[in-house]
Amino acid sequence: MYHSIKWLGNAVSMLDQRLLPSKEIYHEYKHFNDVAEAIETMVIRGAPAIGIAAAMGIALAAKTSNAKNISELKEELHAAAGRFATTRPTAVNLFWAIDRMKKTIAASNTFDELREQLEKEAIAIHQEDIDANKAMGNHGARYLADGDTVMTHCNAGALATGGYGTALGVIRAAVEHGKKIKVFACETRPYLQGARLTAWELMKDGIEVTLITDNMAGHFMKSGMIQKIIVGADRIAANGDTANKIGTYSHAVLAKAHSIPFYVAAPVSTLDPNTPDGSAIPIEERSVDEVAYLQGVQIAPEGIFIRNPAFDVTPVKYISAIITEKGVIENPAQYGIKGFLGK
Amino acid sequence: MYHSIKWLGNAVSMLDQRLLPSKEIYHEYKHFNDVAEAIETMVIRGAPAIGIAAAMGIALAAKTSNAKNISELKEELHAAAGRFATTRPTAVNLFWAIDRMKKTIAASNTFDELREQLEKEAIAIHQEDIDANKAMGNHGARYLADGDTVMTHCNAGALATGGYGTALGVIRAAVEHGKKIKVFACETRPYLQGARLTAWELMKDGIEVTLITDNMAGHFMKSGMIQKIIVGADRIAANGDTANKIGTYSHAVLAKAHSIPFYVAAPVSTLDPNTPDGSAIPIEERSVDEVAYLQGVQIAPEGIFIRNPAFDVTPVKYISAIITEKGVIENPAQYGIKGFLGK
Repeated sequence: MYHSIKWLGNAVSMLDQRLLPSKEIYHEYKHFNDVAEAIETMVIRGAPAIGIAAAMGIALAAKTSNAKNISELKEELHAAAGRFATTRPTAVNLFWAIDRMKKTIAASNTFDELREQLEKEAIAIHQEDIDANKAMGNHGARYLADGDTVMTHCNAGALATGGYGTALGVIRAAVEHGKKIKVFACETRPYLQGARLTAWELMKDGIEVTLITDNMAGHFMKSGMIQKIIVGADRIAANGDTANKIGTYSHAVLAKAHSIPFYVAAPVSTLDPNTPDGSAIPIEERSVDEVAYLQGVQIAPEGIFIRNPAFDVTPVKYISAIITEKGVIENPAQYGIKGFLGK
Repeated sequence: MYHSIKWLGNAVSMLDQRLLPSKEIYHEYKHFNDVAEAIETMVIRGAPAIGIAAAMGIALAAKTSNAKNISELKEELHAAAGRFATTRPTAVNLFWAIDRMKKTIAASNTFDELREQLEKEAIAIHQEDIDANKAMGNHGARYLADGDTVMTHCNAGALATGGYGTALGVIRAAVEHGKKIKVFACETRPYLQGARLTAWELMKDGIEVTLITDNMAGHFMKSGMIQKIIVGADRIAANGDTANKIGTYSHAVLAKAHSIPFYVAAPVSTLDPNTPDGSAIPIEERSVDEVAYLQGVQIAPEGIFIRNPAFDVTPVKYISAIITEKGVIENPAQYGIKGFLGK
């Protein structure tokens, strides 16, 4: 069985998702800065997974430190936390995980305590994420009917999380409940997470998956082949507006035009009550080379202007329900997330 | 200056569009069957251009024939016409051009007459297409305002036609009229005609072009960066429903949701009064390898199911106007194309 990320006690193991599906290669990182670079360069990606990676990276920083006293160690750990906060701006799970680790730093007073408690907290964040995915799957499975073909975008699967997945977790749970579900995976340009990762994951599970290019989504919705759409999320604002992989917004508008339910599955750590709405979510713009080159092959003229926003924002009015591990927000456009969070 | 296609008297010269933008290589075809294969394998593509190619191919068949008498020659020419009719099913210009060549065959009675008249007709089809593009540009330019950013999909430019272009012809004409126009080109998976061809053409013309992936279209419409959308067409049914490159339909639905005018530019030879509506247009499904491999690099797991429809149909209700060389159909949803054609 593969893993997106694994804590090894004195190192972090990660499957290099840039090389899938052709190569399944794991890296072991022994220094926190290598973990941060792995997040930046997308060895690992997916909002929940990068939160876990940052937590493990901070635990690693405590293990490998040569600090001479506790205040020097705490200073180093805060610097490490700051390093992780600069890796990627959009997914709020990253900042949520860093905050948990910072609280653990504040609550610990000796070298041994810091090392032990940070390791424990990172392992807990990982395990809680897997448990949350499975709970989310159970809450969400009832929205998928036996015989449905479900479209998804990007990869919100085991590879994007600690394991099992958010959007793909809901699909997995429906299949485990005995429903026959087929999946349409949009390839997800420019980084092809759908073609390379979602297709790979679902084939391993024996769930029937058909790959399409992103621009075919409307055509297949119109032909009546898609009954439901389910995606993950990188940040859900207080009013329910949802940042997710670029292309999600287009799918949501098309879903509305075809009266197809559009679900978002994400752990509570993706809910961000401090961001009022989608306009306040920072959208990462990545290197133009991700668009101009494909696995080293140039596909656009030299020197052309390119835009490469990695995410877009889907206004809450397009979202039928938000599925979390704590239950489902059925009418997000009406209530946002604050009532659900008890805030 | 480059050319998509050129008649050389005893051969047809084509720019190999599969190799752009990295290589600009021309092939000379001396046998009609090689021209047919060039259409099938997408050395040349674009509805008007493949019509011209088929016409030149049939003229070539007359030139190279070893037929012993006129009825044998006519039989060979009808076989050649039949061969071209099997190359690609969706673009109606192909069948329109073949029909013109068949009428010329019927009207000619000697070897010399057949060779001369078919050559003349093929050259006329080519020249008329360039003239039509320029007339279309002049009719369409008034729909683009100074300062507009215009989004386009696939390549409906000089490379898709005899020269100048349909959708890009309208943009070129607006620029020639002194308007400042910027273009957003969608890359157009799987074959990347936007990234490889539209970007290349417009850069050569000095028209500012920004490349985006197809799934970014909705995001940039929402951010207010796109004022108009203009695309070409492969077949326009009697009621105005329009087949064009896969992804066009999604853009049209998104344009409506953002109140962005959506224009189709195509010569009258693309209008097909014999096809009542979009549901009767045959949609070509191409090889799954176009999705799974990119310039020889595998980007999806081995053995995965893939769908690859090359076109989709945009219902006429999404189309603001159809721009042709004979004038503009302003209210296609109300009147279809039959009134315009005087039928």
